[in-house]
Amino acid sequence: MSNNFRSEAEKADYRIAIIGGTGKEGRGLAFRWALAGHNLIIGSRAIEKAQITADEINALLPGGARRVSGLENIQAADWAEIVVLTVPYSAHVSMLEYLKDAVKGKVVIDVSVPLVPPKVTIAQMPAAGSAGREAQKILGEDTPVVMAFQNISYERLINEKDIDCDVLVCGTSKEARDTVIRLVEEAGMTAWDAGPMANAFVIEGLTSVLLHINKRYGSKETGIKITGVTKEIRES
Amino acid sequence: MSNNFRSEAEKADYRIAIIGGTGKEGRGLAFRWALAGHNLIIGSRAIEKAQITADEINALLPGGARRVSGLENIQAADWAEIVVLTVPYSAHVSMLEYLKDAVKGKVVIDVSVPLVPPKVTIAQMPAAGSAGREAQKILGEDTPVVMAFQNISYERLINEKDIDCDVLVCGTSKEARDTVIRLVEEAGMTAWDAGPMANAFVIEGLTSVLLHINKRYGSKETGIKITGVTKEIRES
Repeated sequence: MSNNFRSEAEKADYRIAIIGGTGKEGRGLAFRWALAGHNLIIGSRAIEKAQITADEINALLPGGARRVSGLENIQAADWAEIVVLTVPYSAHVSMLEYLKDAVKGKVVIDVSVPLVPPKVTIAQMPAAGSAGREAQKILGEDTPVVMAFQNISYERLINEKDIDCDVLVCGTSKEARDTVIRLVEEAGMTAWDAGPMANAFVIEGLTSVLLHINKRYGSKETGIKITGVTKEIRES
Repeated sequence: MSNNFRSEAEKADYRIAIIGGTGKEGRGLAFRWALAGHNLIIGSRAIEKAQITADEINALLPGGARRVSGLENIQAADWAEIVVLTVPYSAHVSMLEYLKDAVKGKVVIDVSVPLVPPKVTIAQMPAAGSAGREAQKILGEDTPVVMAFQNISYERLINEKDIDCDVLVCGTSKEARDTVIRLVEEAGMTAWDAGPMANAFVIEGLTSVLLHINKRYGSKETGIKITGVTKEIRES
């Protein structure tokens, strides 16, 4: 597979673009990855909005942290090595089609969940089977798509609070999953390899189950932790 | 809906039949519910096998516990108020069709996961959308089906070890879910209301994700715990 992401062994910083990064998901992830030393650009449809969000994130970062910038979405995607999609699900297909050429061969991290308002506590998948399969189908086989962060309460990302929810990571390329697992851990969360993209509907659907538990038991931040296993990876 | 299960307020014991109860899932659940004071019958295709399993479970129970008996599957289902289906997935449809009349109006707890060997780490659903929907479709609307225990390592049930895995419970009838949540808790596990049967594919598919994590990280008992919420139920 042709791509330009680095091997797990290289402990380098990445150029990361957060597409639709003016929302709370994008802000939270940008903040945490900038803290971890990565090079971040917020993408938005309007460059001014992207720059305002970047400035707001910079105001939260400590003095020594690398500054976050703002660009139009496609410029941000062109510049990046890793492209993170944090647009509302209603814009999922159109944004992927718009970005297709700009992200070719890059690792695309897709945080999307195909919620169908108002019944967000009932899991429903698009015709492709999952948002992940939908994204992979649009972007083609040369661009590894990895699903992550589907089950996180984004309110918790923007501050430095510990997040009591693990991140399940899936996607067809094991190499790309490993890259994303490293990035999740650098953002301060525990990540688990949840397998190929065929499992994406489980991770996406789990969000509706957690929202149902929120509603039934009166919470706003139901999450999951994986138990019974330690993170000493055995390479197969 | 016509059914004969008791309201949550009545703290009674139940007559519980474990269909296909000679397997490790059925043994473990029967053992724990007998310990909790319920009235258990192991069902099997052959009554002799059912009785041998019942004797083996009785040998593990303390002196004061109510004895477990064995019957042919359909006799056990006829006798019971609550019927638990623990047959291999390959027998799922045929056993449900066989039991349909005997379980009419009763709560049916289905532990099935539609795993497709040898690729058990990849989640795949039957044509009905999930094993749960398949069961509900066969049994009809008068018989509430509840999915539970899909994500539990059954090796842990037969001893009295604490189980570090929560149980997600789903099914269309909220009353039936509440009955099953009580039974899960009496078996020594934490149960969560995961919503209607439309969410069953998530709970079933999660088993493949956990098996993938087992394989990748070298465990045999990966599980999940729900976080960020307490079990003070707010009735809606």
